[in-house]
Amino acid sequence: MSRPPGRRPGPTETREAILAAARELFGDKGYDGASLRAIARAAGVDPALVHHFFGNKEGVFVAAMRFPVDPAELLTRIAPAGREGVGEAMARSFLEIWEDPARRAPILAMLRSAMTNEKAAAMMREFVTAALFARAAEKYGIPPVRVNAAAGQLIGVVILRHVLKVEPIASAPVDELVTMLAPALQLHLGE
Amino acid sequence: MSRPPGRRPGPTETREAILAAARELFGDKGYDGASLRAIARAAGVDPALVHHFFGNKEGVFVAAMRFPVDPAELLTRIAPAGREGVGEAMARSFLEIWEDPARRAPILAMLRSAMTNEKAAAMMREFVTAALFARAAEKYGIPPVRVNAAAGQLIGVVILRHVLKVEPIASAPVDELVTMLAPALQLHLGE
Repeated sequence: MSRPPGRRPGPTETREAILAAARELFGDKGYDGASLRAIARAAGVDPALVHHFFGNKEGVFVAAMRFPVDPAELLTRIAPAGREGVGEAMARSFLEIWEDPARRAPILAMLRSAMTNEKAAAMMREFVTAALFARAAEKYGIPPVRVNAAAGQLIGVVILRHVLKVEPIASAPVDELVTMLAPALQLHLGE
Repeated sequence: MSRPPGRRPGPTETREAILAAARELFGDKGYDGASLRAIARAAGVDPALVHHFFGNKEGVFVAAMRFPVDPAELLTRIAPAGREGVGEAMARSFLEIWEDPARRAPILAMLRSAMTNEKAAAMMREFVTAALFARAAEKYGIPPVRVNAAAGQLIGVVILRHVLKVEPIASAPVDELVTMLAPALQLHLGE
């Protein structure tokens, strides 16, 4: 998309053009395959402007896909717990995101697409691997397969709780779930 | 469906008529809402004949939905491990079912439907609760929410491994996964 002649586009229009180009490229090429430079080119803007608005590719993805979690922020929030408290901190942060219907809806929509469409699966796989799993593994020196196992525990629980609505886990208070899941996550992620 | 006049239907036709009626009723009324008697009536046969072919409602469901696991058989296979070995036995049995593409396909199809369709979700929820979760909780005297948490660990892992294909868990040997997951499941299900 190149800029139409006439009036110079304002910041809102430019931002929206970048996000539209990003959604198309991420959907088409996956997270790894869509470069920030290619997104800028498709939006008809300078790559420096994309940096200016969104910081990096991860920031563009979070904004474009309305991903309700900024992975960098999530990891920063969990960090103070240290490796000995990572299980509980991760359980609470993750479950609380899913408690909020406004944040649950977009992530559930992405998960549904990923369950039924290989391109959507590739996009989600590449994004969570690069932005969350690999970074958490490196930060704490945990084998990546153990990070996957911990993520599996949380993903499975939110599917039973919020999608399949299996009782009693669908109605259990978050605090009860955190208490129950923290030791299992700690087993995967602790020393 | 009542029997057409003329030739008396053979056992294969009768069996297929029962399964077709069952699929329709389970899809429409859910697992709890479709009685064996109603399935027999819809198929135009005597309820005793449904018992004769499939034993009970669970047997009709497993056959009608081509569910690749007979829950009663699965619980029988896990039983010898006792409560102290239930984590490992459950991890191995569950993961091995998913390793076999012929068994994975129908269960994955059901899970995909359940993720996107409330009627399919209700059917799956009611079936796994009645045939697996409630029975396992009762058998071992485990709080049902802990059975859900253990199921969540396994469901999340097979989604990451077989659907989203996240590495390294997608390529890890089953034995490695059993070793890694057994203690987490034991934490939920043990004394």
